[in-house]
Amino acid sequence: MHTYQHLVHYYETDQMGVVHHSNYIRWFEEARTAFFDELGYPYSQVEAAGIIIPVLGVEAKYRIMVGYGDQVTIKTSLASYNGVKLAFNYEVYSASGELTTTGSSQHCFLEADSHKPLKLSRSHPAIHQLLQSLYDDQQGGNE
Amino acid sequence: MHTYQHLVHYYETDQMGVVHHSNYIRWFEEARTAFFDELGYPYSQVEAAGIIIPVLGVEAKYRIMVGYGDQVTIKTSLASYNGVKLAFNYEVYSASGELTTTGSSQHCFLEADSHKPLKLSRSHPAIHQLLQSLYDDQQGGNE
Amino acid sequence: MHTYQHLVHYYETDQMGVVHHSNYIRWFEEARTAFFDELGYPYSQVEAAGIIIPVLGVEAKYRIMVGYGDQVTIKTSLASYNGVKLAFNYEVYSASGELTTTGSSQHCFLEADSHKPLKLSRSHPAIHQLLQSLYDDQQGGNE
Amino acid sequence: MHTYQHLVHYYETDQMGVVHHSNYIRWFEEARTAFFDELGYPYSQVEAAGIIIPVLGVEAKYRIMVGYGDQVTIKTSLASYNGVKLAFNYEVYSASGELTTTGSSQHCFLEADSHKPLKLSRSHPAIHQLLQSLYDDQQGGNE
Repeated sequence: MHTYQHLVHYYETDQMGVVHHSNYIRWFEEARTAFFDELGYPYSQVEAAGIIIPVLGVEAKYRIMVGYGDQVTIKTSLASYNGVKLAFNYEVYSASGELTTTGSSQHCFLEADSHKPLKLSRSHPAIHQLLQSLYDDQQGGNE
Repeated sequence: MHTYQHLVHYYETDQMGVVHHSNYIRWFEEARTAFFDELGYPYSQVEAAGIIIPVLGVEAKYRIMVGYGDQVTIKTSLASYNGVKLAFNYEVYSASGELTTTGSSQHCFLEADSHKPLKLSRSHPAIHQLLQSLYDDQQGGNE
Repeated sequence: MHTYQHLVHYYETDQMGVVHHSNYIRWFEEARTAFFDELGYPYSQVEAAGIIIPVLGVEAKYRIMVGYGDQVTIKTSLASYNGVKLAFNYEVYSASGELTTTGSSQHCFLEADSHKPLKLSRSHPAIHQLLQSLYDDQQGGNE
Repeated sequence: MHTYQHLVHYYETDQMGVVHHSNYIRWFEEARTAFFDELGYPYSQVEAAGIIIPVLGVEAKYRIMVGYGDQVTIKTSLASYNGVKLAFNYEVYSASGELTTTGSSQHCFLEADSHKPLKLSRSHPAIHQLLQSLYDDQQGGNE
């Protein structure tokens, strides 16, 4: 479980007086790239290694509106990983600890130049190992 | 089924060289408000009538990447309507007719000032009638 | 003088109830790329020819606020061109013909791969000729 | 002089492989609202007090391109203040201390509901005093 903070910017609001819903999709990306930072493999290094991780799908469910100046906390977890695809879950909490939004995203790995699918275990074993271990830890728990 | 055109702007791309995935969520909104325009009830009039229609949920599935300068066509249909909630489906087609992205969004109706839920059939029968008829037409087919 | 239309999107508003000022900078880009389209040299072809045209500077002066659903017209003119740099002026008009915003942008030409400055008259005479003729026409006026 | 940090997000890049120029205008706003936070008068309180501070003009000069993952520091100073208008200057520095971008913005004060101009010294003496003192301090220096 990775935790990321975001302070809501004025330009993220719309005339409804709250954050425009599309920005949560961008916050998921902020949280996801912070997740890679914490993993010790920043997404800039991922791309430098010739890998891109495009978004295959994304979902958000909005429960409570968030507004300008709010400090939100996004909890990111690895929902699945199999060497070819990975998925994340996101939970956005208000400063008072309320769950305001949930979401998820699904991804694959492509070779940056050719846009051909990559099987990370073969092409990039180091980052594969990191993701696999992390996923196993999350799944396995502590028993 | 409502059809909306969008020309992909340079600022909608990211360093992957294609449209950033969050922009499709914004295009869905463009298509949705164009849908209200075509219905004869522009969303600006909806808000002027004291109604806001926030997004409760949104999803997108990305199949084919779209890039700068591409002209996409978004087909919007009313997925459900019951006077209290409504939902839309979206299909994004490339200029060559390929289905590049699908999506959906779910909404409720709130009183603009109080943010209290509205039952449109009671509070705003004219726009309720429009949406109900449209939904019935879509469901009923042409018999 | 090139004319470009933009319909104001809901996601372009902020909680002040009008368009967020940063979006005009994006509209200038929309107008500028439409200018290249009309010139017969779409900006996607410019990049395909190995040229990028980054922004060196940009300014906007806001006179009248524009809101959701407004249809604005942007008039773009070539303010200067000398083979190494170019500049544009922008005027944003409301549907009722009021001048709402003025702006300008300054650009150079770089080789896409190396980011080295290009002298278009030498490196890309065809597009140089187009821009030079257009600029001369604008300057020459009607004598 | 107020200092603000911003980590460049992936969605802020464009297909040129660097930050889209419009985002600096948004970062200026981030820095400006952080400036109000530090002043002890967060912009959310400014609006709660019935004041809006729209942007009358904005400029940016781009010297060095900034990219995904870069941590930039924005130095904000009050360029002018006279109770009716205020202006800010911005300097954006890279992590290595290079000045990458400069900018400025000009603002007035409006009554939130009526959009009528406000003379802060009369309408909101507390925030006027804060801004005036800060401006005098900046001007007066230490002699």
